[in-house]
Amino acid sequence: MSPDVVIFVCTTCKREGDAPEAPRAGAALAEAATATPGPFRVQPVKCLSSCKRGPAAAIVRPGGWSYVFGQLDIESAPEALQQGAALLGGSVDGLMPWQGRPDVLKRNMVARIPPFDFTPPEATP
Amino acid sequence: MSPDVVIFVCTTCKREGDAPEAPRAGAALAEAATATPGPFRVQPVKCLSSCKRGPAAAIVRPGGWSYVFGQLDIESAPEALQQGAALLGGSVDGLMPWQGRPDVLKRNMVARIPPFDFTPPEATP
Repeated sequence: MSPDVVIFVCTTCKREGDAPEAPRAGAALAEAATATPGPFRVQPVKCLSSCKRGPAAAIVRPGGWSYVFGQLDIESAPEALQQGAALLGGSVDGLMPWQGRPDVLKRNMVARIPPFDFTPPEATP
Repeated sequence: MSPDVVIFVCTTCKREGDAPEAPRAGAALAEAATATPGPFRVQPVKCLSSCKRGPAAAIVRPGGWSYVFGQLDIESAPEALQQGAALLGGSVDGLMPWQGRPDVLKRNMVARIPPFDFTPPEATP
């Protein structure tokens, strides 16, 4: 299991339109993602504060950019998340490359966050 | 200047309803945040991929949770972001405490992301 990238999946996310008492779509996504073969650790978490855009997941690499995705499909997202984690883990600049990225990780971005010590390329000597 | 927390402000964010050719609200927010007194570094960035929810900013602390906020007000957000950075920087568990948090940093959350090595408290021995 690669230690360099982790996939966080929110377990409390509802899907838009789901009844309040329905089983949480996020829990189903976390279960599916955990069961999906792939080298990257899947860590369920209680809330990614993307409640309006659930089910949500994040991909995090130390020293790289972090990504949050929303409105994920339970069947197809787990494999896409593993693919995104591989792309992020293999990137030289710490950004998830656009080319080769699964469509859902292009269309369903909620946010991306730079690493703590990020300074724009144009600002470096 | 405290090195422990950084505030990223997206410079390309538009405000909902702004004309395409209007000056970018994000650039104005970044300028206002940079000019606002406070101990925490403000780092303009080109895109936080929160384009539908701009103007957007993120607060990042190494080893802590990262936060993204959207639909920020140019006049009031800079001070709120400094307050949020102070709260995050001073927290023991790496989470930005709810109590004492400026209202805009409660209402306008876009996402929060755990630190890379996060495991839920209940999962630790």
